[in-house]
Amino acid sequence: MTGSNKLPGVLIASGPWQAEPWADPFRRHQPQRPLMIWPDVPDPGAVHYVLAWKPPSEAFRDLPNLRAIFSLGAGVDHIVHVPDLPKVPVTRLVDGDLAQRMNEWVVLQVLLHHRQHLAYARQQAASLWREIAQPAAPEVRVGIMGYGELGRAAVSVLRPLGFNLAAWSRTPKDDADIQTYSGQDGLTPFLARTDILVVLLPLTDETRGILNRSLFERLARNGPLGGGVVINAGRGGLQVEADLIQALDAGYLVGASLDVFEPEPLPSSSPLWLHPKVVMTPHVAATSEADIQADVIFRAIRDFEAGQPLRNVVDVSRQY
Amino acid sequence: MTGSNKLPGVLIASGPWQAEPWADPFRRHQPQRPLMIWPDVPDPGAVHYVLAWKPPSEAFRDLPNLRAIFSLGAGVDHIVHVPDLPKVPVTRLVDGDLAQRMNEWVVLQVLLHHRQHLAYARQQAASLWREIAQPAAPEVRVGIMGYGELGRAAVSVLRPLGFNLAAWSRTPKDDADIQTYSGQDGLTPFLARTDILVVLLPLTDETRGILNRSLFERLARNGPLGGGVVINAGRGGLQVEADLIQALDAGYLVGASLDVFEPEPLPSSSPLWLHPKVVMTPHVAATSEADIQADVIFRAIRDFEAGQPLRNVVDVSRQY
Repeated sequence: MTGSNKLPGVLIASGPWQAEPWADPFRRHQPQRPLMIWPDVPDPGAVHYVLAWKPPSEAFRDLPNLRAIFSLGAGVDHIVHVPDLPKVPVTRLVDGDLAQRMNEWVVLQVLLHHRQHLAYARQQAASLWREIAQPAAPEVRVGIMGYGELGRAAVSVLRPLGFNLAAWSRTPKDDADIQTYSGQDGLTPFLARTDILVVLLPLTDETRGILNRSLFERLARNGPLGGGVVINAGRGGLQVEADLIQALDAGYLVGASLDVFEPEPLPSSSPLWLHPKVVMTPHVAATSEADIQADVIFRAIRDFEAGQPLRNVVDVSRQY
Repeated sequence: MTGSNKLPGVLIASGPWQAEPWADPFRRHQPQRPLMIWPDVPDPGAVHYVLAWKPPSEAFRDLPNLRAIFSLGAGVDHIVHVPDLPKVPVTRLVDGDLAQRMNEWVVLQVLLHHRQHLAYARQQAASLWREIAQPAAPEVRVGIMGYGELGRAAVSVLRPLGFNLAAWSRTPKDDADIQTYSGQDGLTPFLARTDILVVLLPLTDETRGILNRSLFERLARNGPLGGGVVINAGRGGLQVEADLIQALDAGYLVGASLDVFEPEPLPSSSPLWLHPKVVMTPHVAATSEADIQADVIFRAIRDFEAGQPLRNVVDVSRQY
């Protein structure tokens, strides 16, 4: 401790994001808590907590009293690969607001493809009145890849719409209330029964590039949409861009929605921007709203200091 | 009766639609039941039931044994205005598949506007990576106008997404589980608390032209979307096209989704087609799928003949 009358301090290392909104609840509720914003760290010994988004590795150096790292987003891939990451707990942001925003984006993208919005938008632009055959939701098999907090939340909003749902995860899930598949053995049958693939995976060494030609080829081809649809709200590093475009152009993928890319911002030279089967958003599916979510972290630190265990701690070796 | 060994006969008067799919379950399950397709009516005395969609008034003439008219869709406006309509019960089609299809369309259109899809699509076309401020669903007030079967169904899918919901209906509803408004007195406060207006009203003399300038001006203007959004899945006759365009161009409406028009098909000269704030579909929000819904009518007739009361009978004087 750097002084018995001081609260443990907070360092915000928020990379490309503005730090101020994240600082706000600490300043408001506990003005006596030391608060630093990287790279301005006048008292490294006071830093007990780092709030991090795409932090530079230097942000973690020489912090002798560091006790925990809080990711400012749902993912931690931007933290776990930092060289010489201090061996303290890393937590991910789990928040109802964030899951709800992701739900909106997932449902919107599933319905855009299911209800053939791109085709109708083209018809509208051509002043063309023509009905397109429309399967009912129970005929359409939606597969959720990654069955954690966000995957379960997605089920709660896709189920009332009547879709035929299943999920795949790395390890078996006992408590699922939909059909689940797991592991390498479960992937092929999961893909074979899936028309619309919703990807909510973390980015790890194991998942990098998992959305590749081999996976696209295993999706259902004779389903009611005439081919597979891929919806990626996980991380850009999951998808192999060239394979995705090849699959769309070959026709066994009939559509894709992407919120994430590698790198971001997506270079304007990428053929994804103007591809007629692709819907893109600039990594906004579930934006961490600092004004709401800074409070979540503020409360997490307060609870931790009151003796409660940290929640939502990730397994750094597993990378999520 | 035209013969004691014959079942009561069915006449299909399906206007612009193919009659064959509607005839199928009768032919399949009860080949002995007389089945006629207008205008080919060799035995008018055998006709006890008319299955109707936009029927010509001649279809109902000289049917001495007519007992009921079944609408082939959720609406009956295309029937109740037929001159000299026989004074027999008219039923509307109520079917889970139809409500589910409408749910898909309503949720898709609400989310399209809520998540600013049109703006993101324009950015994508310009290869522009830019985040747009996004309110959370609980900040956005969705108002459902018309709180019958379809309005209630819409609540079941919009609620899990977190929207702030209310409904308006002509007469008070006791059993609503959301905030409700009713009658002329309730309309202004309902509109004032509504950012996204979802219209599921029947077309009657009272509702014709209800979506007009006066109504658009009463929608919330300072809400999180910067103005009102109108989503019409009812009937084209509800909306005054010129007023809608004026409100969009003046800016107090920020978007509209329309599935219905008057006339249909919408003439290619309509400025709606190319309006940058309008999403259009060609009356496909909840298409009656003949293969599923003909069975609903087949069963309704069978139940009626077994002595059960007809269900979903409309009040012809009220027109819905």
